[in-house]
Amino acid sequence: MTEHQKRDLVSIEDLSTEEILELFHHAEEFRQNLRDWSDVCRGTIMATLFFEPSTRTRLSFESAMLRLGGGVITAADSENSSSAKGESLADTVRVVGGSYADILVVRHPQDGAARVAGRYARVPVINGGDGAHEHPTQTLCDLYTLWKEKGRLEGLEVVLCGDLRYSRTIHSFCYALARFGANIVTMPYPGFELPEYVLLRLRRDFGVQAATAAVDDLPGIASGSNTAAYLTASKPHQLALFTNLTNVEVNRIDAIYMTRAQLERHDGESTLDYPRLTRSTLGAAAAKDARIMHPLPRVDEIDYEVDDDPRSIYFRQAELGVPMRMALMAFLLGKIQLRAQPPKVLATQRGIDGGATLRCHNERCVTNGEGVRYLDRDFRLRSSEAVGVLCCAYCEREILVRFLGDEKSRTFHAYGSPEGQAIPEPRRVHFETDSQAEAAGYRSADD
Amino acid sequence: MTEHQKRDLVSIEDLSTEEILELFHHAEEFRQNLRDWSDVCRGTIMATLFFEPSTRTRLSFESAMLRLGGGVITAADSENSSSAKGESLADTVRVVGGSYADILVVRHPQDGAARVAGRYARVPVINGGDGAHEHPTQTLCDLYTLWKEKGRLEGLEVVLCGDLRYSRTIHSFCYALARFGANIVTMPYPGFELPEYVLLRLRRDFGVQAATAAVDDLPGIASGSNTAAYLTASKPHQLALFTNLTNVEVNRIDAIYMTRAQLERHDGESTLDYPRLTRSTLGAAAAKDARIMHPLPRVDEIDYEVDDDPRSIYFRQAELGVPMRMALMAFLLGKIQLRAQPPKVLATQRGIDGGATLRCHNERCVTNGEGVRYLDRDFRLRSSEAVGVLCCAYCEREILVRFLGDEKSRTFHAYGSPEGQAIPEPRRVHFETDSQAEAAGYRSADD
Amino acid sequence: MTEHQKRDLVSIEDLSTEEILELFHHAEEFRQNLRDWSDVCRGTIMATLFFEPSTRTRLSFESAMLRLGGGVITAADSENSSSAKGESLADTVRVVGGSYADILVVRHPQDGAARVAGRYARVPVINGGDGAHEHPTQTLCDLYTLWKEKGRLEGLEVVLCGDLRYSRTIHSFCYALARFGANIVTMPYPGFELPEYVLLRLRRDFGVQAATAAVDDLPGIASGSNTAAYLTASKPHQLALFTNLTNVEVNRIDAIYMTRAQLERHDGESTLDYPRLTRSTLGAAAAKDARIMHPLPRVDEIDYEVDDDPRSIYFRQAELGVPMRMALMAFLLGKIQLRAQPPKVLATQRGIDGGATLRCHNERCVTNGEGVRYLDRDFRLRSSEAVGVLCCAYCEREILVRFLGDEKSRTFHAYGSPEGQAIPEPRRVHFETDSQAEAAGYRSADD
Repeated sequence: MTEHQKRDLVSIEDLSTEEILELFHHAEEFRQNLRDWSDVCRGTIMATLFFEPSTRTRLSFESAMLRLGGGVITAADSENSSSAKGESLADTVRVVGGSYADILVVRHPQDGAARVAGRYARVPVINGGDGAHEHPTQTLCDLYTLWKEKGRLEGLEVVLCGDLRYSRTIHSFCYALARFGANIVTMPYPGFELPEYVLLRLRRDFGVQAATAAVDDLPGIASGSNTAAYLTASKPHQLALFTNLTNVEVNRIDAIYMTRAQLERHDGESTLDYPRLTRSTLGAAAAKDARIMHPLPRVDEIDYEVDDDPRSIYFRQAELGVPMRMALMAFLLGKIQLRAQPPKVLATQRGIDGGATLRCHNERCVTNGEGVRYLDRDFRLRSSEAVGVLCCAYCEREILVRFLGDEKSRTFHAYGSPEGQAIPEPRRVHFETDSQAEAAGYRSADD
Repeated sequence: MTEHQKRDLVSIEDLSTEEILELFHHAEEFRQNLRDWSDVCRGTIMATLFFEPSTRTRLSFESAMLRLGGGVITAADSENSSSAKGESLADTVRVVGGSYADILVVRHPQDGAARVAGRYARVPVINGGDGAHEHPTQTLCDLYTLWKEKGRLEGLEVVLCGDLRYSRTIHSFCYALARFGANIVTMPYPGFELPEYVLLRLRRDFGVQAATAAVDDLPGIASGSNTAAYLTASKPHQLALFTNLTNVEVNRIDAIYMTRAQLERHDGESTLDYPRLTRSTLGAAAAKDARIMHPLPRVDEIDYEVDDDPRSIYFRQAELGVPMRMALMAFLLGKIQLRAQPPKVLATQRGIDGGATLRCHNERCVTNGEGVRYLDRDFRLRSSEAVGVLCCAYCEREILVRFLGDEKSRTFHAYGSPEGQAIPEPRRVHFETDSQAEAAGYRSADD
Repeated sequence: MTEHQKRDLVSIEDLSTEEILELFHHAEEFRQNLRDWSDVCRGTIMATLFFEPSTRTRLSFESAMLRLGGGVITAADSENSSSAKGESLADTVRVVGGSYADILVVRHPQDGAARVAGRYARVPVINGGDGAHEHPTQTLCDLYTLWKEKGRLEGLEVVLCGDLRYSRTIHSFCYALARFGANIVTMPYPGFELPEYVLLRLRRDFGVQAATAAVDDLPGIASGSNTAAYLTASKPHQLALFTNLTNVEVNRIDAIYMTRAQLERHDGESTLDYPRLTRSTLGAAAAKDARIMHPLPRVDEIDYEVDDDPRSIYFRQAELGVPMRMALMAFLLGKIQLRAQPPKVLATQRGIDGGATLRCHNERCVTNGEGVRYLDRDFRLRSSEAVGVLCCAYCEREILVRFLGDEKSRTFHAYGSPEGQAIPEPRRVHFETDSQAEAAGYRSADD
């Protein structure tokens, strides 16, 4: 496995905030002349490697590459024949990302699989959705659409509605909204609230504060008696604008982002009385200038009669996906240059070696799936205080490290202790528990 | 749902007779330089949305678009992933027909689905076969081949042979032959005759008369003792040329159109002794100048030894499908202009609202299938005499309307009565039966 | 069925040795400017007709055609819809190879199917793998890679390792190595030796001699105590260089060609202790300049730690597949001319008619499969001594002809007898046994 200078888009964090905004401007240029081959990528081949079906995402990428003047090869077989014969994802992307194709779009059912593809392929890799991990181009398209409609992202009031628990799209969108300084009002279908780990990460990485929100009556999705959560990354002096941080009143909504029940990931939960956005929702005063968004496909959660309302922009979201993906691919292929700086740390670099002890606890993670026979356990440090917060370099699931061992002295210390932090990096061994350390033959420095 | 200025080809009637003939000439031009990109559609993307498999049709369209210099994206998954998640056809075509593609080819198992696609997509839609409804490009290719071989269509004697009951291709071809003034001799596999509704429509819409036919012995498909039906749109003074209208003698056959048993739609019927065209069939005097046609795929109904006979043109039919589809797509995309006038009424316009009462009785109709949750019941008036003949705007199945209600007075009258016909259009409510009217709260004007 | 002037690549023998070498040079030119459309095949459409899945092979061909500036249409449905309706391969290739596509790549589960495609299609056909018969472009790519790495093929010492019994790739590679004068050392997984018919053909067609080989210790794949077979086409005076022909010592290995267990063709045999190439294998002195090859996909038979060794060239093999296929297609399409002469006998010509008596004994042969209803039994003469060795013109399985009958006198003679050989060609009838001849109404000339 070798490191490359090339850029991937596996997680939305692989792009800096400034790069994203600059890509929006490039997307605008492509959009204005969509019906002509741009020839920007003439001579270039994109391969879509879809290990699970997603016709919509695939067609959007294929259209984008054709409109750039390039060519497309597609492995969208429900059962990829090479992997049926036992081939690893790492081998597949090395072959297809060799002479076959100049850029890869990978969709895979296992969390973190797109990062594996990015690390092994010599050409740029775009994540077209990897399990419950990320679907960054969906997020880019959502942000681009909202930015285009409202002229900005900062300070927008965005309502998220429906199944907030299982929707990967919603989670990625949350992080991105927080990063761009938008405020989030969550109106989940009861029982399908944002998971705790999403809230934790919003707080730690983006300083997002939570409050309860009182929202004007939005028939069909929320009534005044319902309390919603309000998530804001605003700085304290701004929060002071609200009379009571713990009960923010939302009188103006900039966008309502509706999402379908992710039935395929449910455990048989009922979806009776799932929220349903109708013409009367749009009649609410607070929704006067709201945009109605949906990642599509929709089922029944937005009435067909709403389609003709000028505030409904869910088909425009899909439409803007093509120029957005054109800009992204032209950038990754080096056909357009960005002035903006990349993120400080590129996730392609190796982090902390998990060795024989640490493993990702996410059973759907690619390191526990098809990568188990060839992937090293690799972690990144997210936070280092009393305990260390490490995340799997592939699926980004976090684990807590409470002890640090010294490979030389074979002793271990509490993570945040001066002795622990004094262990030189190359000698550090990470343990979640003291029994883990002892099982590995280390003894407590306290004994 | 909005109406568009764009043209679709959902039914062969979406093109005027003059337009069709003009398209043949364009197809000829494309055919003569087939092995070169024409660049007529450079910068254009065609999407094939196949909700049921049809490799042949799909490849023909894809080849045509590539030869026009355009690009192709394909959703030919046996199970479309978005529709698996509950997405409607209307949503799919609005997304894919947005920025993804500039023209759509749709194949769908439900009758009338292609019209739904045409109404919702902003870009031109071509019907690649929708259930038992239509497959208009197959018909165009058949007509083009025959026209090219014989120099004309009017007055040709065309034998249709095999399973005339379940073959959608045969039905569409019948209407088209009648429209172009060709005569039809039906030689069905016994029990698989042309359905009554096809005969009815041939008579009403094209003035076609039926007679029995005595055909020269055609070994393998008919013997002299068999009686065949003769369908002619000829005017009375021409019919007089035959000594006896009820027993036309056919001594010259211009084409024999053979079709396979549509086993996938059969109900377990035996196909023992299914007609089989062999070298000896072609030895018949009447077949001397006949062309042998078949929509393909064939099974056993034409012997392989017939393939080398110069009168066999079934592979040429398939071959001409590419230039024919090139001409059609170039036209629908506005890349070539036709001098001919379009049909007087374009089927894309809304007709009679079925309201809560009228519904299409075709259980395979898209209005009773995937459209049931969002499609209005829409009908077109086909004939208005003692009873009204309405057809479903999607699948074209007919229903008979015997009563007209007046929304204002809440009374109803016999359809053809002066009182019925006097009800102003906007107030008219259509009923098949009096009990239907009464159930809707209308009372008979006769009471 | 008509004969064409066009060239196919169904078997590696469809190209002369000189043509192959010349194609390598063209491949080199394409390789050096791979990331640009070459426009050599602009206006040309390749159809991939895959009746069984092979994502890898398909993508390689598609990439090659796109890089040549052409277009691609693909029927890779696991179940081709036309063949599901009962269409023959002969019909499919006549339709798709008509106006749809200018060159066909066919993959089919039945042995010999690619030759059927070649005979019926009017355009060039490339075999993308037909059952257990051949996969000639894989062989071309393997040879090209080895030639490029070592500068020659003649006299190379090539170790074949693993499942040599079921690997079609290995068999084709053996014939090709023999033809180019390379020597083969077989190190099979015990029980999975090269089949007898491969050895027979190597001897008869290429004069290959077998010996036992003593190979330096190659940990993981062979130990010194193992005896391997040594196959050489070297002329006697060269063989004399070895002290003992029956025990050749191999001290320098030029390539180790590893192959996975073809589990999908196994009969439940265990693959415990299947050879496994590791870093320590590469530490062997004899392997110092060896290249490690593998047709991919690999399973576990090459350790991931070997990937970074500069001698590992299996990903390069895949990479070189694209320029190799570009050169091949440009040649078959007449876009580049070769100075070299074609093989003396092109396999597209008809050979010996099997009539009602002779049939191919390979039950997986296309003549016993989907072609049974339309293919003639056609054989080619491979050797004519005391008995005649005929091979099926499609799958190349051999049969032995021991008697020749005279159609005129209705007598039969021993194949090699003067009387037998005196029967004029047009009157000859071939029999495997005397009882076969008698059953056909022939009597022995000896009676």
